[in-house]
Amino acid sequence: MTLNPPSPATHPRRTTAPLIALTMGDPAGIGPELCLKTLLATDDLPDCVPVVFGDAELMRRIAGRCAVPLQADVLPLSAWQQGSHPTAPTIVDCGAVNAQDVVPGTVSKACGQAAITYIETAVEAAMSSRVAAVATAPVHKEALHLAGLPYPGHTEFLAALTQANRTCMMLASEEITVSLVTVHTAYRNVMAELTGENILQTIELTYDAMRRLGKETPRLTVCALNPHAGENGLFGNEEAERIMPAVESARARGMQVSDPLPPDTAFIPARRKDTDAYIVMYHDQGLIPFKMLAFEKGVNITLGLPIVRTSVDHGTAFDIAWQGVASPSSMIESLRWAIRLSAK
Amino acid sequence: MTLNPPSPATHPRRTTAPLIALTMGDPAGIGPELCLKTLLATDDLPDCVPVVFGDAELMRRIAGRCAVPLQADVLPLSAWQQGSHPTAPTIVDCGAVNAQDVVPGTVSKACGQAAITYIETAVEAAMSSRVAAVATAPVHKEALHLAGLPYPGHTEFLAALTQANRTCMMLASEEITVSLVTVHTAYRNVMAELTGENILQTIELTYDAMRRLGKETPRLTVCALNPHAGENGLFGNEEAERIMPAVESARARGMQVSDPLPPDTAFIPARRKDTDAYIVMYHDQGLIPFKMLAFEKGVNITLGLPIVRTSVDHGTAFDIAWQGVASPSSMIESLRWAIRLSAK
Repeated sequence: MTLNPPSPATHPRRTTAPLIALTMGDPAGIGPELCLKTLLATDDLPDCVPVVFGDAELMRRIAGRCAVPLQADVLPLSAWQQGSHPTAPTIVDCGAVNAQDVVPGTVSKACGQAAITYIETAVEAAMSSRVAAVATAPVHKEALHLAGLPYPGHTEFLAALTQANRTCMMLASEEITVSLVTVHTAYRNVMAELTGENILQTIELTYDAMRRLGKETPRLTVCALNPHAGENGLFGNEEAERIMPAVESARARGMQVSDPLPPDTAFIPARRKDTDAYIVMYHDQGLIPFKMLAFEKGVNITLGLPIVRTSVDHGTAFDIAWQGVASPSSMIESLRWAIRLSAK
Repeated sequence: MTLNPPSPATHPRRTTAPLIALTMGDPAGIGPELCLKTLLATDDLPDCVPVVFGDAELMRRIAGRCAVPLQADVLPLSAWQQGSHPTAPTIVDCGAVNAQDVVPGTVSKACGQAAITYIETAVEAAMSSRVAAVATAPVHKEALHLAGLPYPGHTEFLAALTQANRTCMMLASEEITVSLVTVHTAYRNVMAELTGENILQTIELTYDAMRRLGKETPRLTVCALNPHAGENGLFGNEEAERIMPAVESARARGMQVSDPLPPDTAFIPARRKDTDAYIVMYHDQGLIPFKMLAFEKGVNITLGLPIVRTSVDHGTAFDIAWQGVASPSSMIESLRWAIRLSAK
């Protein structure tokens, strides 16, 4: 470990690689361990310089407990703020929490506040183009709430920080990609949130994202809301009244979008082959097939922000925090997709 | 082909095998072809005597067009009604339709009426224990309606014929089995149909069926209604108010039933290994994973009838009727599961 970035000669191939921010997440959860393990895995990824926004002393403590080496330079926040430009894996040491005070697996205001600091600092870096993307480790909603954050979760906070007025949750993997029109809402409340405008926005944001990911003409499969797509109005008419108008608007703008398909056959292998991304009407319509095909291999991408943001698709896992057993696969995928999305 | 059943000496191993009824379904659809192909496939199945309730002349005509041999004896309906007991694959010739009048792929009152006759005759045979089970080929709802049937579909008709007062649709396959609390109803109407009583009945019927299928202590996984199982009431409270009481009642009766699980992780491979059957709250919650895993290999089983009834999990496929290209796999599975269910 060094306090200063090594000379370009030491890391010649990294000097022009994009910087990707990783936020450390809630210090009491598995986030720090995931960051440590992800720093070790970058050789298998496209060229990048991972920069963890976190607390160095805490990461050292967890590295010892988990027997995972800390392979990164450490840069004080002040040096980062003065314009230092890392050219090798680095921890920007935010000094946001006292390492000795953190109890693994415990909700606390101090950890919530620290998690907020990492996010704010990383987002500022992305908004000023000092990093190309942000990949976030998990935060704990209750800790954020104790710290006084007036948002229900990560995504809403990011939207506020970046002044985005419409966002969309897309889950991506090599096997299947799904974008959600409605997300964390009760079954009974989906009907109220499922508007033609929301459907069209989800289609547009997904189409743009798939183009950034290299699909020249993305093929989007839109799911119906009702079984059998309503069977001509027999089991509901939202297909004709809400979904089809959005599909037609998207087509009028040149996008390749399916009719609302019966959800039960939309995900069979033959259809998946012809689909780059799915537009699903509610959480489990997309998450059931997604987790069947890409459990622990998925990444959560927030569309609609002025910055690239990816995230793990799991929580803080307080029950296994600091034990060395957490799988970094989703965090590594978050970094991989952040690089892909920021390349264009 | 012979008009009379061969002597027992010709088919010595079949004399004690159970008779399983197959209904021919809508004559203008793929049902007759599926029956022809299923009759050819019985060597790979447990010992049984398939008895098709249909029209012999029509099946001969389709056999010629599809180049599929008709390998069965033909028994006039009158002979069947006088007590003849087939010991080899047989068509009970109901004489319900004029073979030359049927136009493939066309909805007609005559075909609807014929399909009704096959079902009525087969159900009567099952109710009087002359056959051990009924496996049904697809019917066309519109044709049944033209023929004056006052029921929305196959299952409701069977319930009326057998005076069953509660039924449940279970989809079974080697990979996954799901039972549906609500079936063909609009998304917005699920809430009204999802009662504790319906949930408990579905659990009970499924438990009994799995025991008949040889599971001594069936392990049932119950899905929640809301994403994340409602996350402690944050996204809905039907888990606590409707599902959990049914789960507790079932447990009080000695059944092994899970808590209502978050639907998106309920179907991941690790959980499937610990599950004999799923209880799902609505159509697509179960049909999305089922069709992903068992497309064209599934069978539809109606629980709650006083007879064993299985069915293909697809429709009449008028677009490919009489062309020789229809896959009999689901019909063969229907026969296989009918044998399994009637064995105990």
